[in-house]
Amino acid sequence: MSKSPKERSKPHILLTNDDGIFAPGLYALFESLSAIAEVSVVAPDSEKSAVGHAITITDPLRVMPFEKFGKFFGHAVNGTPADCVKLAYFALLERKPDLVVSGINYGSNTGINIIYSGTVSAATEGTILGIPSFAISLTTFTDADFTFAAKFAAKLAPLVLKNGLPKGTFLNVNVPNVPESQIRGVAVTRMGMAIYDDKYDRRLDPRNRVYYWLTGSKLEFEEDEEVDDGAIEKNMVSITPIHYDLTNHRILDELKRWEIEK
Amino acid sequence: MSKSPKERSKPHILLTNDDGIFAPGLYALFESLSAIAEVSVVAPDSEKSAVGHAITITDPLRVMPFEKFGKFFGHAVNGTPADCVKLAYFALLERKPDLVVSGINYGSNTGINIIYSGTVSAATEGTILGIPSFAISLTTFTDADFTFAAKFAAKLAPLVLKNGLPKGTFLNVNVPNVPESQIRGVAVTRMGMAIYDDKYDRRLDPRNRVYYWLTGSKLEFEEDEEVDDGAIEKNMVSITPIHYDLTNHRILDELKRWEIEK
Repeated sequence: MSKSPKERSKPHILLTNDDGIFAPGLYALFESLSAIAEVSVVAPDSEKSAVGHAITITDPLRVMPFEKFGKFFGHAVNGTPADCVKLAYFALLERKPDLVVSGINYGSNTGINIIYSGTVSAATEGTILGIPSFAISLTTFTDADFTFAAKFAAKLAPLVLKNGLPKGTFLNVNVPNVPESQIRGVAVTRMGMAIYDDKYDRRLDPRNRVYYWLTGSKLEFEEDEEVDDGAIEKNMVSITPIHYDLTNHRILDELKRWEIEK
Repeated sequence: MSKSPKERSKPHILLTNDDGIFAPGLYALFESLSAIAEVSVVAPDSEKSAVGHAITITDPLRVMPFEKFGKFFGHAVNGTPADCVKLAYFALLERKPDLVVSGINYGSNTGINIIYSGTVSAATEGTILGIPSFAISLTTFTDADFTFAAKFAAKLAPLVLKNGLPKGTFLNVNVPNVPESQIRGVAVTRMGMAIYDDKYDRRLDPRNRVYYWLTGSKLEFEEDEEVDDGAIEKNMVSITPIHYDLTNHRILDELKRWEIEK
């Protein structure tokens, strides 16, 4: 489809998520961002929660056109969120995106959970490709109201496009699931380091074979407003700058003192 | 099986990988580490490359006993490397491990590839559980000789057990695939930030439907011996300290100056 000159001058936003192309959070984002940008949707064809930063190398990827209200809405891919961003960039989109937005996720992506998050991995992938990116999540699994989160995304997107982001860094945004009137503001936070008390439920299937389900709950809680979960607890939008340089630079010298020989 | 007092006094090492419980790299590690420790193996029942830091929450996990040479060798799990470490810790092992070792991987885990790596994610998971951990990879896909890498692992393991590692930090080890006599030493390195020139091969299946395969090659190369790939290129063992605090702390203040309002 050729675009009018006016549309061409708009920024181009690539939208994806990990809840799948059917998800209402993705559509809420599509609606709000379409007011300020040309929006392309490339998203998984089914839910891909907790896939982490997986990419598909052992299977072929398939792409299906996905319609909504009788019109082409986006590309549905049988892969992960990271696959969607890579495939969009290298194969599907004619015009390279100026911004990658991933979400709106059902459920928060905070603390160490972000290393398992498909939503966040899409923003990481955008960043690796050199495109400013953010992930956005609503901190609930029930009674989700995406209205304010979608509105906030449309406010943040132009700011990111204007200011840019440092090389290798993207934003991880979490929005409390409360009416806009109860949102107390926006906090720039760090990723919480609280750990989880995971458990596995051991069960027997109808043929008496053992299987396990993962359960678990957070062990501690960081009240600090400077931490992602702490800010959310106080009804603030949490914005955490995340980077993918995983080196712990501070201990390079200490390790060298180990004088490890071959 | 009850252990003799002597075995009990040995450290306990949990072994896993992402190539699967059948992989020769895992067995090489098992043999070399068994000389210095009680070793438990909990590994995926099939290859799980590029699964990133995925955990299985939507399916039950199954565990099968896996034998080698007529004896129990370890637990085979229908999950990811991260699943294996979690499940081992919370459900399968009677004695908590003192160290988690993941590998020996077929192929290097360096640069931004480590964020896709199942091998590395197992070490991350061990670290989250508060257990010193390292991942070890051999930098080849063909003509692999795990001898020196396995021997080096048995040298590094006691050092890690003795010195410990800073909270939230583990080691990512890459061993060049050359004879021991050609190894020039050990370098403490940082994760390379070189990017890849990914491509997707667009093909038609026998029914004329489109599918895509990921291909790609490294775009640039960091010669620096202080960078993982640079050290390997010079036939040195590369050891990179990795942490899972993904916050880019350096730009917290810059972001606050954006004065983002709700």
